[in-house]
Amino acid sequence: MSELFLRTLRENPADAEVASHSLLIRAGYLRRAASGGYTWLPLGLMVLQKVTEIVREEMNKAGFQEVHFPALLPREPYEATNRWTEYGPALFRLQDRRGTDYLLAPTHEEMFTLLVKDLYSSYKDLPLSLYQIQTKYRDEARPRAGLLRGREFIMKDSYSFDLDDEGLVVSYQKHRDAYQKVFERLVIDYVIVSAQSGAMGGSASEEFLAPADAGEDTYVETEGGAANVEAIQIKPAQSISIIDLPAAQVHDTPDTATIEALVNFCNQNESLKRSNQWTAADTLKNVLMRLVSQDGTTRVLAIGIPGDREVDMRRLEAAVYPEIVTPFTDEDFAKYPTLLKGYIGPNALGIKSKSKIEYLVDPRVVSGTSWITGANQTGKHVFGLVMGRDFNPDGQIDVADVRVGDECVVPAGKVIRLARGIEVGHIFQLGRKYAQALDLKVLNENGEQVVVTMGSYGIGVTRAVAVIAEQHHDERGLRWPRTVTPADVHLVIAGKDEALAIAANQLADQLNAQRLSVLIDDRVGVSVGVKFNDAELIGIPTVVVIGKKYAEGLVEVRDRFSGAVDDVLLSELVAKVKQLH
Amino acid sequence: MSELFLRTLRENPADAEVASHSLLIRAGYLRRAASGGYTWLPLGLMVLQKVTEIVREEMNKAGFQEVHFPALLPREPYEATNRWTEYGPALFRLQDRRGTDYLLAPTHEEMFTLLVKDLYSSYKDLPLSLYQIQTKYRDEARPRAGLLRGREFIMKDSYSFDLDDEGLVVSYQKHRDAYQKVFERLVIDYVIVSAQSGAMGGSASEEFLAPADAGEDTYVETEGGAANVEAIQIKPAQSISIIDLPAAQVHDTPDTATIEALVNFCNQNESLKRSNQWTAADTLKNVLMRLVSQDGTTRVLAIGIPGDREVDMRRLEAAVYPEIVTPFTDEDFAKYPTLLKGYIGPNALGIKSKSKIEYLVDPRVVSGTSWITGANQTGKHVFGLVMGRDFNPDGQIDVADVRVGDECVVPAGKVIRLARGIEVGHIFQLGRKYAQALDLKVLNENGEQVVVTMGSYGIGVTRAVAVIAEQHHDERGLRWPRTVTPADVHLVIAGKDEALAIAANQLADQLNAQRLSVLIDDRVGVSVGVKFNDAELIGIPTVVVIGKKYAEGLVEVRDRFSGAVDDVLLSELVAKVKQLH
Repeated sequence: MSELFLRTLRENPADAEVASHSLLIRAGYLRRAASGGYTWLPLGLMVLQKVTEIVREEMNKAGFQEVHFPALLPREPYEATNRWTEYGPALFRLQDRRGTDYLLAPTHEEMFTLLVKDLYSSYKDLPLSLYQIQTKYRDEARPRAGLLRGREFIMKDSYSFDLDDEGLVVSYQKHRDAYQKVFERLVIDYVIVSAQSGAMGGSASEEFLAPADAGEDTYVETEGGAANVEAIQIKPAQSISIIDLPAAQVHDTPDTATIEALVNFCNQNESLKRSNQWTAADTLKNVLMRLVSQDGTTRVLAIGIPGDREVDMRRLEAAVYPEIVTPFTDEDFAKYPTLLKGYIGPNALGIKSKSKIEYLVDPRVVSGTSWITGANQTGKHVFGLVMGRDFNPDGQIDVADVRVGDECVVPAGKVIRLARGIEVGHIFQLGRKYAQALDLKVLNENGEQVVVTMGSYGIGVTRAVAVIAEQHHDERGLRWPRTVTPADVHLVIAGKDEALAIAANQLADQLNAQRLSVLIDDRVGVSVGVKFNDAELIGIPTVVVIGKKYAEGLVEVRDRFSGAVDDVLLSELVAKVKQLH
Repeated sequence: MSELFLRTLRENPADAEVASHSLLIRAGYLRRAASGGYTWLPLGLMVLQKVTEIVREEMNKAGFQEVHFPALLPREPYEATNRWTEYGPALFRLQDRRGTDYLLAPTHEEMFTLLVKDLYSSYKDLPLSLYQIQTKYRDEARPRAGLLRGREFIMKDSYSFDLDDEGLVVSYQKHRDAYQKVFERLVIDYVIVSAQSGAMGGSASEEFLAPADAGEDTYVETEGGAANVEAIQIKPAQSISIIDLPAAQVHDTPDTATIEALVNFCNQNESLKRSNQWTAADTLKNVLMRLVSQDGTTRVLAIGIPGDREVDMRRLEAAVYPEIVTPFTDEDFAKYPTLLKGYIGPNALGIKSKSKIEYLVDPRVVSGTSWITGANQTGKHVFGLVMGRDFNPDGQIDVADVRVGDECVVPAGKVIRLARGIEVGHIFQLGRKYAQALDLKVLNENGEQVVVTMGSYGIGVTRAVAVIAEQHHDERGLRWPRTVTPADVHLVIAGKDEALAIAANQLADQLNAQRLSVLIDDRVGVSVGVKFNDAELIGIPTVVVIGKKYAEGLVEVRDRFSGAVDDVLLSELVAKVKQLH
């Protein structure tokens, strides 16, 4: 440590919102170099290299073969699949000195597809799985949380190539198994959740989420499984018989443009109130959004959901992808005179209405359900408006916020838990989208050209480092699992006596001989207290202190995880440390 | 090999000019992905990883510490050192979604300087050497020769930080030593030559050149050492007494606008010819160039050199850097009525002449030397024009082509050899340029702020792979040194008998147990001849053939370097292979 390129910091960096970010900076693993770009300092790079090597080993063990593509790629292949456009502002684009368009690859589906097309041509060559561990680029709108969402990051991306769907299922499962082994070795706590495939197209898709409050993904656990909140399906309500339901009535409800105001008004107004209080769940809220398609054209979508729910923007974005969701502004309202803000009712909506706005409703809004909703007149609501009798939406959309207790179809059962997680892995069955677009075919056994089916599989390697830090730390610092620690032993020389330094170096030699790496805190002019604080901050799992008990032939062994402190005979130290590992 | 992602090719790729490029493609190590960008296939990546690991090990052994910067960097630091502009079109520039300027780093001096400034502040922290192994980007005008000149490539770049010049010399020497170890382990034949520092600024500078006809660098060997042709200094000729030299005379020399025509005319014209034939060396040729400075302004430079020499453009470019050399066109001539193309003489040149063009002469043009040169009248030359008497140039410039026998000052002595080489390493003493520009100072022992002095050291990692291939191949294919081979043994199953396959797998297990990696050619339906050809093309140094002599308990061991073929008892194979390694 007297020579290590390291400065530990006492203060949390101002821009650090999450523990992993803060601790990795403070403990001297990382420095910010650019917006969303980090420099790995020596200790950090050691962890990154260990994580990388674990990923590589498990990929190789599974029989996947490593290749390596450039990051700077020509536009054409991405044009062929429309991703040059589809990626929007998240793609870093540039031109070379000849004015030719290039991009910094955010992911390499196209290049892998073309490479296999270049080399292979027969069913005999399949199945095949290739991978690379490579720096990726994505121009994030809001880089945040250190390594958790950067603009330059390392990913392991794999691609499988199969002749048919059955083969794809096998390749997918092999990746799933390999990913489980990777995350076990990285000591990352994770859940596998069903996922929307998002920008990638395709069918079966699962995410490996590391539960963490700092996570950007929300997932749902039911009795039947777990899914990304974008991927769940709420069980539609049972339709109810329309017969005998009272007729709808319009009432004056002045100044009730919000659900809260409306419910309060209903419960306080003598003519409207009933024995059991009205709640927001009795109301039907109609939300307008403007959707922008890839060619720049826009359309308006109306969403009807019970008033006690909100539209979950992530669920909506996933549902309308590749259209982009933008707000419906006052300017937009001006274009629709039949829509009165705060008092919009179902009958002003729908493709057959005057507004011609598509109107989709929540799965809880089914035939026979009766609602308080806008009467399309300012200061008026209609009571007892029954779906299937008084209004008919254009279809269903499942984008309301999800709550514990909600009944799901996918994953089946009641929601037990909602939690946040960090996506560290993603596997999915791409299918033939890329092979079709780039004409990757092979001859099958009958001599016919068939389009290959593909899978795509990613692990966020730099992100995994942050996830490990996020899941393994305490208030004093990091606590690295032994599989990825920058050194096996942190050896603190606690005293100025020359004999201690000599003994420490001898101990280090003995540990090295057992393939145990040692970081020696041999700094002079640094107090023992500072050394201990640094050791805890840096988080090497085993700390050995050689100090005043050395005269008695003893060193102290501290376990950074359990907090246990043991005095150990010098002669038994190596055995003790080996036993911990 | 039945599963390896590999296709060997019989034909040389159309764009391959050099053997390494052609063989690495044909043997399935690489595929072209973009102009100057290559995809590493599994075999190639294995070699690249071994080369990388050797570089890393030697850097670590020397006590240098590894870090890792982003490749995508903001403009500001490069603006501070003027390299944002200075790099010209060779820099890949781009903007992010906010319109902020970024670049893809071609080298990282600025970032290392800022990182050290960020963390360190005292002389006690120095000396320090940091390095990274990283993908670099350079928008080459003419990417060529596969990995030899790409636009995306991997470099190991190191930087040393010292308090004073003496420290820098020590750090420089440590890097020089480490580089020698690296290239020895990579089995790269190299020479260390003095070099111009080119774009980097600074003083002492040496290149590690791998002699190869495919190289872009020319270097010069003298009795006293070796230097890049841009870095040598020709010994100036001895000045001669002017006294008693005959007066200059103008003669009609019609149609002698070229040196060849002039010399022929002189030797054929009765009044001009002499007993010993005139040669081009008797003439003084005046060459005009237009130089463009970084701010876009241009100026004209005239160079006077003996007529038997040419201006070496690389030497000239290095001499006038950072000005860029462009041709002097007919349009330019039109602007200088006193300059008559083909008949320009010294007296029309010089900052004091009518043309005001700076006039510099070769070191062989010294006081007392007498020349046939242009008389500044069409169809006329002047004979016996003596420097120091009849004309006085503005100074000297040493940019003529270099030939065996030329006398040098640096490196001292006569030129013995001129050869071409590939630059695989470059070390040099940057000095304080970057530290000054970016304000990297530390407190010295007296508590004073002093500017740090730096060194910069690079190894072309991907290029080293090509250099090894360039230096180690024959007409049948590659021949990898054992330190970097993708596998230790290439085991060919030469026959269809199931017993051979079983025995081969057993042999591979035995070799693996000794940490020897094996590539088994287990392909069915591929002839033994094709297998042998592929083995030679792929170039693993030891080929073991298990075939018809297996019944007698024998396998064949072929040495890809010596060509030796030995029959070896199965029971002795592992020992034999170990002995080869």
